[in-house]
Amino acid sequence: MKNFMDKDFLLETETARKLYHEHAEDMPIIDYHCHLPPKEIYEDKKFRNLAEAWLGAGDRFGDHYKWRALRARGYVEDSISGPDDDYKKYRQFVDSMPYFVGNPLYLWSHLEMQRYFDIHDVICPANADKIWNEANKKLETLTARKMMEKFNVKVVCTTDDPVDSLEWHKKMAADKTLKVKVHPAFRPDKVLNPELPAFAPWVKQLEKVVAKPVTTLEELCAALGERLAFFDEMGCRLSDHSLEVVHYAPATYEEANAAFVKGLKGEALTSEELDKYKGYILLFLGKQYARMGWVQQYHIGATRNNSAVMFNKIGPDTGFDGMGDEVFISKLSALLAALQSEDALPKTVLYCLNPRDTYALCVLAGCFQKEGVKGRVQVGAAWWFLDQPDGMQQNMETQMQVGLIAQSVGMLTDSRSFLSYPRHELYRRLLCNKLGALVESGQYPASELDTLGKIVEDICYNNAKDFFGFED
Amino acid sequence: MKNFMDKDFLLETETARKLYHEHAEDMPIIDYHCHLPPKEIYEDKKFRNLAEAWLGAGDRFGDHYKWRALRARGYVEDSISGPDDDYKKYRQFVDSMPYFVGNPLYLWSHLEMQRYFDIHDVICPANADKIWNEANKKLETLTARKMMEKFNVKVVCTTDDPVDSLEWHKKMAADKTLKVKVHPAFRPDKVLNPELPAFAPWVKQLEKVVAKPVTTLEELCAALGERLAFFDEMGCRLSDHSLEVVHYAPATYEEANAAFVKGLKGEALTSEELDKYKGYILLFLGKQYARMGWVQQYHIGATRNNSAVMFNKIGPDTGFDGMGDEVFISKLSALLAALQSEDALPKTVLYCLNPRDTYALCVLAGCFQKEGVKGRVQVGAAWWFLDQPDGMQQNMETQMQVGLIAQSVGMLTDSRSFLSYPRHELYRRLLCNKLGALVESGQYPASELDTLGKIVEDICYNNAKDFFGFED
Amino acid sequence: MKNFMDKDFLLETETARKLYHEHAEDMPIIDYHCHLPPKEIYEDKKFRNLAEAWLGAGDRFGDHYKWRALRARGYVEDSISGPDDDYKKYRQFVDSMPYFVGNPLYLWSHLEMQRYFDIHDVICPANADKIWNEANKKLETLTARKMMEKFNVKVVCTTDDPVDSLEWHKKMAADKTLKVKVHPAFRPDKVLNPELPAFAPWVKQLEKVVAKPVTTLEELCAALGERLAFFDEMGCRLSDHSLEVVHYAPATYEEANAAFVKGLKGEALTSEELDKYKGYILLFLGKQYARMGWVQQYHIGATRNNSAVMFNKIGPDTGFDGMGDEVFISKLSALLAALQSEDALPKTVLYCLNPRDTYALCVLAGCFQKEGVKGRVQVGAAWWFLDQPDGMQQNMETQMQVGLIAQSVGMLTDSRSFLSYPRHELYRRLLCNKLGALVESGQYPASELDTLGKIVEDICYNNAKDFFGFED
Repeated sequence: MKNFMDKDFLLETETARKLYHEHAEDMPIIDYHCHLPPKEIYEDKKFRNLAEAWLGAGDRFGDHYKWRALRARGYVEDSISGPDDDYKKYRQFVDSMPYFVGNPLYLWSHLEMQRYFDIHDVICPANADKIWNEANKKLETLTARKMMEKFNVKVVCTTDDPVDSLEWHKKMAADKTLKVKVHPAFRPDKVLNPELPAFAPWVKQLEKVVAKPVTTLEELCAALGERLAFFDEMGCRLSDHSLEVVHYAPATYEEANAAFVKGLKGEALTSEELDKYKGYILLFLGKQYARMGWVQQYHIGATRNNSAVMFNKIGPDTGFDGMGDEVFISKLSALLAALQSEDALPKTVLYCLNPRDTYALCVLAGCFQKEGVKGRVQVGAAWWFLDQPDGMQQNMETQMQVGLIAQSVGMLTDSRSFLSYPRHELYRRLLCNKLGALVESGQYPASELDTLGKIVEDICYNNAKDFFGFED
Repeated sequence: MKNFMDKDFLLETETARKLYHEHAEDMPIIDYHCHLPPKEIYEDKKFRNLAEAWLGAGDRFGDHYKWRALRARGYVEDSISGPDDDYKKYRQFVDSMPYFVGNPLYLWSHLEMQRYFDIHDVICPANADKIWNEANKKLETLTARKMMEKFNVKVVCTTDDPVDSLEWHKKMAADKTLKVKVHPAFRPDKVLNPELPAFAPWVKQLEKVVAKPVTTLEELCAALGERLAFFDEMGCRLSDHSLEVVHYAPATYEEANAAFVKGLKGEALTSEELDKYKGYILLFLGKQYARMGWVQQYHIGATRNNSAVMFNKIGPDTGFDGMGDEVFISKLSALLAALQSEDALPKTVLYCLNPRDTYALCVLAGCFQKEGVKGRVQVGAAWWFLDQPDGMQQNMETQMQVGLIAQSVGMLTDSRSFLSYPRHELYRRLLCNKLGALVESGQYPASELDTLGKIVEDICYNNAKDFFGFED
Repeated sequence: MKNFMDKDFLLETETARKLYHEHAEDMPIIDYHCHLPPKEIYEDKKFRNLAEAWLGAGDRFGDHYKWRALRARGYVEDSISGPDDDYKKYRQFVDSMPYFVGNPLYLWSHLEMQRYFDIHDVICPANADKIWNEANKKLETLTARKMMEKFNVKVVCTTDDPVDSLEWHKKMAADKTLKVKVHPAFRPDKVLNPELPAFAPWVKQLEKVVAKPVTTLEELCAALGERLAFFDEMGCRLSDHSLEVVHYAPATYEEANAAFVKGLKGEALTSEELDKYKGYILLFLGKQYARMGWVQQYHIGATRNNSAVMFNKIGPDTGFDGMGDEVFISKLSALLAALQSEDALPKTVLYCLNPRDTYALCVLAGCFQKEGVKGRVQVGAAWWFLDQPDGMQQNMETQMQVGLIAQSVGMLTDSRSFLSYPRHELYRRLLCNKLGALVESGQYPASELDTLGKIVEDICYNNAKDFFGFED
């Protein structure tokens, strides 16, 4: 029996252990897509206690993985996302821990305690107070920036609305004490959802930011162009789009503009109109990204706000999103082909939330490569609900079988929490374990172990650096 | 090499063996969803020979898993579901056994021989007569009730039409010699399929049973309400719905009633009309279930009667159903959200037949939890074609990774046969094997083994008891 | 640690090794579906060097798996499918080899070197020239036919257009020196795609071949009937259809004819019209196949020519196809049921490209069996992108769990290359490994090993021989 989560955790062979400890463990981290709040990085957020740092709280976004699990346990919402006492929240999480057997929360939580707090106890009711006291003591000095330093995080890309002033990014750029390089990333979801109530108000905001009217699609594109230029100037290297389903159809300017105007007025849009409007915008944006050398990301298939009751009560991004099952490959293919036809397909990372689509997505990516670029279109690491051992392993295996994992830009946290960096460690362990298994089972020669070690280093760090174009 | 199907079958680690033998093996069974015939339980069915008990026969439902396999072998239908000689049927099944390598029939069949008949021979042509004689001898005393007692079955929920008189349930309730508690379960499939020829005749039956006209949706709901009250009084604790695809759209009474009237007349219904009618009925029923504290089950994605030829020859439920691939998540989400919005979402167990949907279904379930209930909406165990080692294991792993298996209500047989109880054993072995592997690979601490043993007991029995509200 | 790709490669247990070496390794091959060029078999193609044999070249179809990988590496197209120097092409493939870790190319390539060339070196930059020289030397005598003889290939079925003259097949039939029996196979894709530009020109070709006008559906069917008779006479035993999505709806002759006429004129066809036309043709063809005792194959879900840019540059079948995600089960079921209803459902092998559909397809196949035939409708081996260890293993496991792998017609290459026969070896190793694991884990009795060995031999060779009706 292996020890519980020791240094060789998840490393089942000698080769896996060698690859991990000699090539993966000490590589720095480029967290090229996350939702960390720029303000908290700049201000070097200090946490009042472990409950705030670990679970979040009513006055701050929280860890929706943990919230979902606590809801499934049947706890009252006030003690999850609400105003209840911090210790009470902490205790019911610890009391629930044994029942998280097999769930990634069990692993994440222990890794979080081990790596940030150097606490190696089993998280369970008997140890609850000991852990609470020790961790809170450490949080007196373990600030947000310190948390990032512990993991040797070199680069972070936040997720920012096109109308954002990037004020905190400006301050960070001027802050010599900041050891991590923080880039903004362009996330124009609001402009892509004319069917939602937030659309027209957002366009109003955009008008204010660019100080020009935005009443036609032409004006919209011009305004977006200004914001793209501003983001680029501020060091942005990539964009991100959450596509609940993929909408795309070839469209004339007039067709797309008509849909835009309907959206502005809050009128209902047909699926065909959405295809034309969204397709038009994605083509416009893609071309700009390509021109500026940005990478674009498509996150496909998250269904938002499934529970109307809870959305009305506590808003979006609180643990009520799901995994869609819509058909999307042919429209996505047509969209990528349209960009390629104008020689304007940027480097692209594709993610699907439903694991049943990983295979088709990897194969599609392989149809849109480009001379002089390694993996111009590629599939990203396991995302969100798949961000756990089984999900990561299946994602890696599929990337291997129908793609080239050696060229992958590797792991990202996609997280709102400073305590999520152990996910990179988990990814690296699983990667080394899988590669080690290939060697030990005679599927890759042991004589090539040095090369394989280099490939591990690439996936952990070098590939992302090169692909996104970050400087050392 | 491990022995063939011995006491440690499928238990690969010491921890797995400990969990199984100390915590799972002896737990009683609550078979909360099956298709056992109430009459046969009451009358304590005696089987004329192993062919009848094991394979079924023309004058009785049969084991459609076995029938499918025999058809694939190319045998004539008369010797499968038809009037041919019992021994002939038995022999061709035994003769085929070696060719079932890798199929769950190989395991089920041997477990059935071992557990009910204490016959531990390999089932193969050479042993055919020996097994036939020994088993037939035992069947002289091994009646239906004895079969259930062998597995310590405490509770069984049958599957009953709303128009059923529940006469056998009444008799069983009065029978002091019956050791298993048998509840009816409400399965209103016929009322949910106005597109099928059976609809109008069924409504006629309903009219007769409630002795009132049922010509409007209002009258239909009133009649269903009467039957619900009757079932509740008779000890019903749960309902079940087979949804080939999920139909749901918000509907006014008038819209749903118009669809109902068309269905009564046998007129064709559009997909939108089905969405409105079925959605209306599912909302109506869900509210009643919630009010009465019942659990509802949705079995999603079985396509019925694929072979028109065989349907016309031998009718439904004979081995010609399939696994659908329709998109359904967004409608299911809207349906659950609509129930929740009226504070009328009952405890719900969701099943999907196509394993590609298990992930999305588990994630969706996590969006609809409730204060004070453990796993208010949860995904059920592997169903039907997935009721085998790979299917069960994948189902468990998905439930673990994006849900809390510790709160699962566990296994059910969903079977027409008294010989299906070893499926609970298989489930328990695979569960303990998986949990044991987590411990032995360092993913769950060995120090928490007592807690884990308790969790195993919960999944085997306690969770179902609490969730459905069965008394000891 | 196991040796790299030695004789016991992928055989993890003693039983697996026994099954493979004693029952699988030496069985002949029936390659019942491939794309080998009849001309090259007849002429006994000699390769100018390893680059031509292994990678293909501009003047000849190439290995699109390898091309895709090289594109992902960022090489220029001229050095992949274009006119660049052979050694350059070879070198960049070898230089890339280490980065194919986990990809089947790593295994295929080494098996190809080992089995055809008796070269057991690791393929890597350091060995590049040694391998180049040795292999080229061997290619002086290692011709196409010799390559087939090395693998004991008894039967090959090529893939031929209905308008093909089968001239090379005629010559091969008369060539006593040819040790492999080469059959044509009927692949009427062009007639099934009236929505594509190639449709009307193809009908023109058909008119020429049958020397009759083809302006109505009736004339089309008559012309196809002539070609079917010709193919049958030439030894054809099976047909193949690539169905990007499954189109089927019941149709009258008039409806289908109207769609045919629109297609001839190059007019756009609705999805409903395609359902009716394609359904009509598939029914017509199926009936003919059934009458002649042919096997039909449906290859479902390959999306063609995703990159318009590359299609315009280098044409179809060059590595830009993908994996679809469309819903298709209900239409496929209706199509098979319609054939069965007319007692005209031929033996059928179903393939799906997207692995998420394998389960549903296997279950559907089980609904359409026939007295006197073993596995009348069955699912084929892992196809194309799934033609690798994970894909093959998942395919086998699904076939086992919801079908009878013992009756499978086994592996095929589906390849354009004479160097693809090691895929049969890989399949056999994985099959024996899986069956060996069942025995060693106590799921199949060791006492039945002789029977299991016979089953292995059946899957490797005998089943295909019997199913397709090839003579010894």
